[in-house]
Amino acid sequence: MASQSWEFIAQAKKAEAASKIPSAWHLPDEYTQNISENASNNVLNVPRQCGLLSPKQLEITENYDATALLQKIHARELTSHEVTEAFCIRAAIAQQVTRCLTETFFDKALVRAKHLDDVLEKTGKPVGPLHGLPISLKDCFNIEGVPTTIGFASFVQNAPAKSNSALAQTLLDLGAVLYVKTNIPQTMMAADSHNYVFGRTLNPHRSNLTAGGSSGGEGALIAMRGSVLGIGTDIAGSIRIPAICNGTYAIRPSANRIPEGGQASSTRNGLMGIESCAGPLATSTRDLELLLRCVANTDPWEKDPHVIFSPWRQVTHKPALRLGFILEDSHFPLHPPVLRTLTAATEKLKQAGHEIIPLTVPSIKEACLLGFRFFSMDPAWTPFKHISDSGEPVIPALGSTKLPSEHLQYEYAPMTLEGLYNLNEQRNWYKEQFRQLFVENRLDGIVMAGNQGTAVAHDQYGFPAYTVLWNVVDYPASIIPLGKADKNVDADFKRDVVYRPAYDADATDGAPCCIQLVGRNLHEEELLDITETVSSILTK
Amino acid sequence: MASQSWEFIAQAKKAEAASKIPSAWHLPDEYTQNISENASNNVLNVPRQCGLLSPKQLEITENYDATALLQKIHARELTSHEVTEAFCIRAAIAQQVTRCLTETFFDKALVRAKHLDDVLEKTGKPVGPLHGLPISLKDCFNIEGVPTTIGFASFVQNAPAKSNSALAQTLLDLGAVLYVKTNIPQTMMAADSHNYVFGRTLNPHRSNLTAGGSSGGEGALIAMRGSVLGIGTDIAGSIRIPAICNGTYAIRPSANRIPEGGQASSTRNGLMGIESCAGPLATSTRDLELLLRCVANTDPWEKDPHVIFSPWRQVTHKPALRLGFILEDSHFPLHPPVLRTLTAATEKLKQAGHEIIPLTVPSIKEACLLGFRFFSMDPAWTPFKHISDSGEPVIPALGSTKLPSEHLQYEYAPMTLEGLYNLNEQRNWYKEQFRQLFVENRLDGIVMAGNQGTAVAHDQYGFPAYTVLWNVVDYPASIIPLGKADKNVDADFKRDVVYRPAYDADATDGAPCCIQLVGRNLHEEELLDITETVSSILTK
Repeated sequence: MASQSWEFIAQAKKAEAASKIPSAWHLPDEYTQNISENASNNVLNVPRQCGLLSPKQLEITENYDATALLQKIHARELTSHEVTEAFCIRAAIAQQVTRCLTETFFDKALVRAKHLDDVLEKTGKPVGPLHGLPISLKDCFNIEGVPTTIGFASFVQNAPAKSNSALAQTLLDLGAVLYVKTNIPQTMMAADSHNYVFGRTLNPHRSNLTAGGSSGGEGALIAMRGSVLGIGTDIAGSIRIPAICNGTYAIRPSANRIPEGGQASSTRNGLMGIESCAGPLATSTRDLELLLRCVANTDPWEKDPHVIFSPWRQVTHKPALRLGFILEDSHFPLHPPVLRTLTAATEKLKQAGHEIIPLTVPSIKEACLLGFRFFSMDPAWTPFKHISDSGEPVIPALGSTKLPSEHLQYEYAPMTLEGLYNLNEQRNWYKEQFRQLFVENRLDGIVMAGNQGTAVAHDQYGFPAYTVLWNVVDYPASIIPLGKADKNVDADFKRDVVYRPAYDADATDGAPCCIQLVGRNLHEEELLDITETVSSILTK
Repeated sequence: MASQSWEFIAQAKKAEAASKIPSAWHLPDEYTQNISENASNNVLNVPRQCGLLSPKQLEITENYDATALLQKIHARELTSHEVTEAFCIRAAIAQQVTRCLTETFFDKALVRAKHLDDVLEKTGKPVGPLHGLPISLKDCFNIEGVPTTIGFASFVQNAPAKSNSALAQTLLDLGAVLYVKTNIPQTMMAADSHNYVFGRTLNPHRSNLTAGGSSGGEGALIAMRGSVLGIGTDIAGSIRIPAICNGTYAIRPSANRIPEGGQASSTRNGLMGIESCAGPLATSTRDLELLLRCVANTDPWEKDPHVIFSPWRQVTHKPALRLGFILEDSHFPLHPPVLRTLTAATEKLKQAGHEIIPLTVPSIKEACLLGFRFFSMDPAWTPFKHISDSGEPVIPALGSTKLPSEHLQYEYAPMTLEGLYNLNEQRNWYKEQFRQLFVENRLDGIVMAGNQGTAVAHDQYGFPAYTVLWNVVDYPASIIPLGKADKNVDADFKRDVVYRPAYDADATDGAPCCIQLVGRNLHEEELLDITETVSSILTK
């Protein structure tokens, strides 16, 4: 590293990032000056109020999902340029009130959008199924010519990426327009998208709440409708947690269904055990399907040798479902708004004629510990080396899943091969248990909470037991947003238990609620069919 | 363990196994008395000469592959009972001249065959696509009520298996008849199917040659036509090496395409890195396809949570192929008969209009070392513990791939997590290199030797570099048998190089030759289409 302090480096990077937002897109001070991590600002209406977006731009960014936008672009009712410009401005607005972005490359995006419009004009044919659609990417995805710092001060002076990560290239090949990358936690191993280079992403529903992580910038950006379709990654919940916190749709696909190759990683090469996966956050179930289907059908192995060859399957819609039901692990009791949401959801599903089968499952607490033991197997503690390389401090959020933890005392597994053999054996045991549950109960899927709580105060999220469980067994899992926490109604669901993290009815009032649906490994097609069925029942 | 010596235990087990062969099926002494590991007996004609098989039984066992037999059984031209009986007798004959079997359960098989005949008679419908077909299994597959000792004296007194391994159950569900299990090396990590419980399997082409391993009993049994379809497992070549040594067809599918769950293993639970896979040895390409297609279409995940969900795909036949060509790694020069066979094969393929593209590939020697370093990562040396538990000695064959080795000096990787991270990183590098080769050259497959030599003298096989390479990158690979070693013709292909293992023209004269074809991960369908194309050109 140069002799510059990490503070100087981070400050310069922040200033550079800010300078890339055209001054015409700067919000008047009144919209930004009072926003605080300790206040409870709801900034979701700022784009509509601030006057920076024309009525048509408001319509473009608010009234459609990606599927609908693509129809309009391909039918030449909208140009990619006007759609891209609208989302660029709205993303810039979102950034100013939530700090959800890292890199922006609006000019490049608009040039590409114009080019795509010209091609469509000339040939009458879209270059691919995502022709003209702006898509946002988590910071870890390399884009040629764009820096990738993943929130480490020690990475700021790295050269910009020399090539596109496999997924970025795939999206470009499919016709998408890339315009922003989104904020993440230092190390990407926390549920608060907070780092000392780009700052902390705030929840647009309430600025005192976490936006989740590690794809927290995506969650906040999509909630702000600064993007309709974004890509995150998930090794313990990092796609789903931001969806849970910000009220968006999301799916964590099976590992290696979607290419992860060519990304920046905070962890050590040659990692073993639980693998990260890439997947979408969106504003509708059908957009989740759109993204997975388009990518799976490009034969993404051609760009990433770790991808499992698995072309997208057309599945027959299943009208009557058998859904396993998991209430909770007693170590992580559901917070009142989560319990209310889940109870109401299962009741409504039953009324609609679907079978809800209560499951007795192996310990979710132990599965969570197992996951975190896997994540701590690197004897070189590589992510922490990236932190100490610049001298920057460790973000507070990392304290909530690292010993000593107030939510869950645990010991690391011995960092030995013996230790890893034992973890693998435990993981295989979990896989076998859930196979039996699925087969013996003839389940189409499982319905449960996405997390014990809603978004909570910054740095308090703790162990994401209900998401990491599915990384441990490698099952796909989707999130359906469902209403909001309401401290008055939720009071009826308060129990005399130890909530981990603590339940604060006032601080979380108005936070988004959701449910999680789970399918069989490599059955994203079936899971999304179920997600659509359940979503249409619960949100009508 | 009891206080009985391993010699006593093994002797008793051998006697018990021998007693299960009905005396009516015992070969006259003249056929067995001169067979020796040091002689060069070719016993392939014994079944025809010995008089134990009727003309119809000879026809059944010699004139059809599994596909043809199934057609005849399902059309009620043959009964499963008569087919099963013919293969039981022929397997018993094979056992007496090659020691290819471990467990036999002829009575049970004949009862099941009769039952299947009755069902077909009554319902007019086969219970599944493999209805009535006898299938042989490597000893490691658990079959309810049958012992599984995998050649360890210390396992002999274990109770018989309490349940069927996932694949055995799948085959039964598909209608197959199980009748024998086949011999393997002590530890299953050697190319000589030799252990102190069941003895050493001899190559039916020449008794002084290895039958290969670790599925060597399968290879010898199928060459003797004591089975038309058998199942082996392969982590370094253990399906392909017996096919190479005995002149059968075989395919090593991608790991986890076919269920391996519920098997006995010599290695430690929780193993990481390169995974073993199950797959068929057969007498035709279409039988390889038959087995994989039928199993993949049962959704084998329902029995084994490690199976990758991947229903069998119908692929369009590719008439003109682009085949990459790998000649050899200079550390493992091809023996003259292998070089002759491969040269003639590629010449013939070119003449048939297929493109042969010479490839520059990463070091195969280093890939082989990488594989063996992975295999040696267990700090507890579990397979050797199973040996020492009974006090039996280590088989000599294990010396040929263990330090000190005359074929390849190497150091074990440090048995640490650091060591494993490094191996994983190297493995990922190989995967990336071969992805690039496939994509940049637009390859349909790769054609190469299956091994540097043919079957060689017992305990001399050494490092299976050309097979383990594909376990390292997890690509499917098939073996097509092609003629025999001929010391006179082969003399022209002798070069002034160091052959590893040594080339002995006299000792290996008449040994089977073959080529190996390689496809992309999880592209068994395409690989078998290519295998059929190539096989039909080269064997006509």
